[in-house]
Amino acid sequence: MKNANGYNESDIRKDYHNLTKLLIEKNMTITTMESATSGQIASLITDTEGSSAILKGAFITYCNEAKIMQGVPAEILDKYTVYSKETAEAMAKACAKTYNANIGIGVTGTMGNIDPANPDASVPGRVYFAIVTDGKVESYYVELEPQPTRLAYKLAVAKKVCDALMRQLENLDRA
Amino acid sequence: MKNANGYNESDIRKDYHNLTKLLIEKNMTITTMESATSGQIASLITDTEGSSAILKGAFITYCNEAKIMQGVPAEILDKYTVYSKETAEAMAKACAKTYNANIGIGVTGTMGNIDPANPDASVPGRVYFAIVTDGKVESYYVELEPQPTRLAYKLAVAKKVCDALMRQLENLDRA
Repeated sequence: MKNANGYNESDIRKDYHNLTKLLIEKNMTITTMESATSGQIASLITDTEGSSAILKGAFITYCNEAKIMQGVPAEILDKYTVYSKETAEAMAKACAKTYNANIGIGVTGTMGNIDPANPDASVPGRVYFAIVTDGKVESYYVELEPQPTRLAYKLAVAKKVCDALMRQLENLDRA
Repeated sequence: MKNANGYNESDIRKDYHNLTKLLIEKNMTITTMESATSGQIASLITDTEGSSAILKGAFITYCNEAKIMQGVPAEILDKYTVYSKETAEAMAKACAKTYNANIGIGVTGTMGNIDPANPDASVPGRVYFAIVTDGKVESYYVELEPQPTRLAYKLAVAKKVCDALMRQLENLDRA
């Protein structure tokens, strides 16, 4: 079944299978610090056998305090709000550092409802994510079409993250 | 579609919806430290709106080093192996402590293949999990029927965890 963005869940799962296989082949480790997606991306990565070679651990940071505890500077959250590319970048950097991973992914945004803890900064469907690859940071902003469920939002974000990372890995090969 | 244990994915998702609603109603916070399920349980909990009130953060610890970094005593892993009720209990306690949560869930086991990092201790489909509720620990051991995919294993474990926690919450009411 396709969701509102025309994504198909089984295609997203296949994309992650290919991503995990590629990372194992390249011997590149990966980790995540996930707010909006809340572990869904890490779980997609580890749905493929052999993933323990590339993912050692990851974080779900569902509030500001958790992000700070796991290495996001409080000043970044204060200055840019939790929903910002700066916060996504700090999340990606922090998890990559903790796990000494080649790739760190940070995801922050709203999954279809106003965040009661951040009413001014949250807009449904707006998601920021960042990918740190061997120290180089790329950040992304996406606005998602309304989705039928929070799972569908999570999978739609996961698809964007996978596509962006795959493009980065292709560019690495060309460099 | 039912999996090999007779579970139905949409029923599992409904069970987690009910669990999250109940925890919000009871104002009980929850966290997880997930190895085998790798964030799938935290993601199921946060598929329901309002879950940010009860889940502040969680851990995915996919290797021994990650478990130790997040508060599992190395001696527990050495003495009982990573696949043991003692390790599951230490995981549940460690995450509950970090997030000062009412409920902590620790999950460790194998999802259908021999763990190359723990060849002697791992048996496909054997999973240990523990639930700490307000300081009281209950641990569980399950042997799963062969499942078609790692996702199906994760969901089958998630179902067992949800059922066990729901029973605990019912007993709390009676006490």
